[in-house]
Amino acid sequence: MNFSIIKRTVGWILLFEAIFFTIPMLTAIIYWEEAFFSFLFTALLCGLLGGIFLIGKPKSYAIYAKEGFVIVALCWIVLSVFGALPFVLSGSIPSYIDALFETVSGFTTTGATIIPTGDQVAALPKSILTWRSFTHWIGGMGVLVFIMAFLPLSGGNLHIMKAESPGPIVGKLVPKMRATALILYAIYAALTVAQFILLVCGGMPVFDAVNTAFATAGTGGFTVRADGFNGYSPYLQIVVTVFMLVFSINFNSYFMMIKGRWKEVLTTEVKAFCIIVLSAITLITVNLCLTDTIASFGNALRHAAFTVSSIISTTGFVTENFDTWPTLSMGIIVLLMFVGACAGSTGGGIKISRVLVLGKSASNEVGKMLRPKQVKHVTMDGRVIGEDVVRSVHGYVVAYALIFIISFLLISLDLGNLDYSATTNLQLVTGFTSVATTLNNTGPGLGAVGPIGSFAGYSWWAKLVFIFNMLAGRLELFPMLLLFAPSTWRK
Amino acid sequence: MNFSIIKRTVGWILLFEAIFFTIPMLTAIIYWEEAFFSFLFTALLCGLLGGIFLIGKPKSYAIYAKEGFVIVALCWIVLSVFGALPFVLSGSIPSYIDALFETVSGFTTTGATIIPTGDQVAALPKSILTWRSFTHWIGGMGVLVFIMAFLPLSGGNLHIMKAESPGPIVGKLVPKMRATALILYAIYAALTVAQFILLVCGGMPVFDAVNTAFATAGTGGFTVRADGFNGYSPYLQIVVTVFMLVFSINFNSYFMMIKGRWKEVLTTEVKAFCIIVLSAITLITVNLCLTDTIASFGNALRHAAFTVSSIISTTGFVTENFDTWPTLSMGIIVLLMFVGACAGSTGGGIKISRVLVLGKSASNEVGKMLRPKQVKHVTMDGRVIGEDVVRSVHGYVVAYALIFIISFLLISLDLGNLDYSATTNLQLVTGFTSVATTLNNTGPGLGAVGPIGSFAGYSWWAKLVFIFNMLAGRLELFPMLLLFAPSTWRK
Repeated sequence: MNFSIIKRTVGWILLFEAIFFTIPMLTAIIYWEEAFFSFLFTALLCGLLGGIFLIGKPKSYAIYAKEGFVIVALCWIVLSVFGALPFVLSGSIPSYIDALFETVSGFTTTGATIIPTGDQVAALPKSILTWRSFTHWIGGMGVLVFIMAFLPLSGGNLHIMKAESPGPIVGKLVPKMRATALILYAIYAALTVAQFILLVCGGMPVFDAVNTAFATAGTGGFTVRADGFNGYSPYLQIVVTVFMLVFSINFNSYFMMIKGRWKEVLTTEVKAFCIIVLSAITLITVNLCLTDTIASFGNALRHAAFTVSSIISTTGFVTENFDTWPTLSMGIIVLLMFVGACAGSTGGGIKISRVLVLGKSASNEVGKMLRPKQVKHVTMDGRVIGEDVVRSVHGYVVAYALIFIISFLLISLDLGNLDYSATTNLQLVTGFTSVATTLNNTGPGLGAVGPIGSFAGYSWWAKLVFIFNMLAGRLELFPMLLLFAPSTWRK
Repeated sequence: MNFSIIKRTVGWILLFEAIFFTIPMLTAIIYWEEAFFSFLFTALLCGLLGGIFLIGKPKSYAIYAKEGFVIVALCWIVLSVFGALPFVLSGSIPSYIDALFETVSGFTTTGATIIPTGDQVAALPKSILTWRSFTHWIGGMGVLVFIMAFLPLSGGNLHIMKAESPGPIVGKLVPKMRATALILYAIYAALTVAQFILLVCGGMPVFDAVNTAFATAGTGGFTVRADGFNGYSPYLQIVVTVFMLVFSINFNSYFMMIKGRWKEVLTTEVKAFCIIVLSAITLITVNLCLTDTIASFGNALRHAAFTVSSIISTTGFVTENFDTWPTLSMGIIVLLMFVGACAGSTGGGIKISRVLVLGKSASNEVGKMLRPKQVKHVTMDGRVIGEDVVRSVHGYVVAYALIFIISFLLISLDLGNLDYSATTNLQLVTGFTSVATTLNNTGPGLGAVGPIGSFAGYSWWAKLVFIFNMLAGRLELFPMLLLFAPSTWRK
């Protein structure tokens, strides 16, 4: 293990985090808030520590798969550990574990909160709210990808990109990894600005629009208002709906669009994503209308579209309390949490491309039952998906299920302490969706953690489980699993 | 497709079903019940139809994989369609769909019932109760395996055995398939008789003991008493606990025991099964004691052991209403439903061996992240499991998940009609476990279909979905999937 290069990268992360704090500091200056000093102190601390970590030249710049995973896992943990400080120092979130939960939820673009009510969220200092939303924006595209765009991480770029970027296959858009990172961030920034402009044009206050654009771009889910998105005009809700979907699509498609390679824009994954989204919206709209949950067809359609986009993109914004919707709609919502967005987007979940690989290889297996000697490969966009990728997708889903089950069993011990515990049956729903919503980086679940609930009621150790889940979900399991595997540290 | 051999096998199934009816007819004679004539009529009908189907020689005796799957699926459907008649004719279950549900639940050894209350079950004619339990015994080891033991199904024996027997790999115990079938049924019968004797020695009435032995051997779950197993003595509960576990173990182990090949008795699968059972019992006992759900340690241990054995064996007998147990215990119970018993046993679920293959191949994949060039195979009992078996296990689980999801979405439309529908959150628990308990052939679920509930409240179309699930679960998906796949019927 090349420890010197790991130390060096952590140093860079701390320096970059110090720079990230300028955004909330600017907000604090504009609104003349005391929280300024909490950010300043943390920024100086990060800068100092980062500088110390960067002293001396590493013996070797080599980054192999092993170092790639460890660097990504450690950097995200360090980022969160220091990112949580301003919440505590400003007194906004007194408990450190709570602040860590909130920060991890921010960076991993989960958007689950430990702040009990919407009113308490709205009452936070504006600089703190900005930091919350900005963590979404940083985490959405990946912080190491960001650093990569500005610094050469000599040699290990591909390994780091693989470990941080979502999806079963990570490719380069252009031959140079650094240029790929720059292009991705340019598209990301441009789309964020576009959304901001459309929101302001629709009459959203500038502060709200900045935060909403940050949170939508990262498919995060933190909001600045007590009533989430319920209070905004239908126009604003529709803009957000569209942009949640925009940020759920593989960024490669936008690159191909710019290059004019239109055939490569509509990949199998993007097509499947569109079909899933449209079917889900249709089913839920019909279900809401037929059960008279929402009276008018127009409203039902708008809320269904908003909710489906919010959940499949794993953003987690809310216009309607879907915890009281009929069972079919709730079932679809929980299902979409697991499916998640496209690979190579800022969204979470298992990812459409993995679901496609699973489905196609299963259908091959069923076919093989009839014709055992037939050899059939999984193909996508006309290319054969290698057996190793198919195997790794299967491994991914099994590891995912295992983390899910263990987390659920652990936190189930804490469910009796939650307010919302009329029966143990209801606790099952809360527990199941708590794990689902953190592991998929969605945000809201059902029951006690539903759209009008929060994670406030859980004990500190259950929150630690959720913190692990959110990081594991965002980094696609392996970095977090390998960080704790003894064989990673063995010589 | 060799239709003539399919017709012929269906003919044999009908003749054998006519013979099966002698058991409830004998009971009807002993207890002087009118239901005798319902059985007699159905038996004559089956005999007549079976005879007609057997007229003429088939053009070819060839049974390939395709014919194997179709024969198994069709035979099980025919068996259930006619097996349901006595329930309707005797007036015990007036609705035919309900009777079909009950029969399929019997043959597939699920044990879920549409009879609303325990009192109504206990009030049924004794011959009807015997038929219910006897369907478990027939279905447990497989009806085509039974026929195979007596008739040569020329050439296709292995394909039929593969399609009907549970587990990812089906082997022969002895070179001849027919001898293998005979050995399996001999072990099955001997163990059933052993349990019957131990039950009668413990003071259980002979009628109860016969039915309990049938239902335990098939890991079914139908009972003859209003209070299930709550009213029996601790000794009887312990005997049943032990035998539920006995029937969950791969029958190959018993064959090896007889042969004195002790090293082959304790396979990896059997060891894993024991570890899972012991851990689950320990966790639930501690959970029940610490939460004061059951006051005395002895009682908690007995009920935990009974419940764990009942669920993992997918029998579904009940001593305690676990629907009100704390969340950790309920979570473990739901988990065990999915895990299920060993391959080659009479139990259902995904099967321990499949879970092992999944876990081992996933752990290989995680290891491969660190050392991408390493080649590692999945091994079990020192033998390498072929890539094709690993792939087919993965395909199995994906197909399983797909059937689960589609069933859940379909029946979710019906959940609002159930009595137990205080909130849509509670309906989710009922719906989720209804699908889980039918697809895994367990029997009871949670909520409305919990230990003291039933499937009576569902509409006829939801019952049809569950009937499909029970058959798909028992026949391990592929026969039922291929029966409805157009490519099976294409030339």
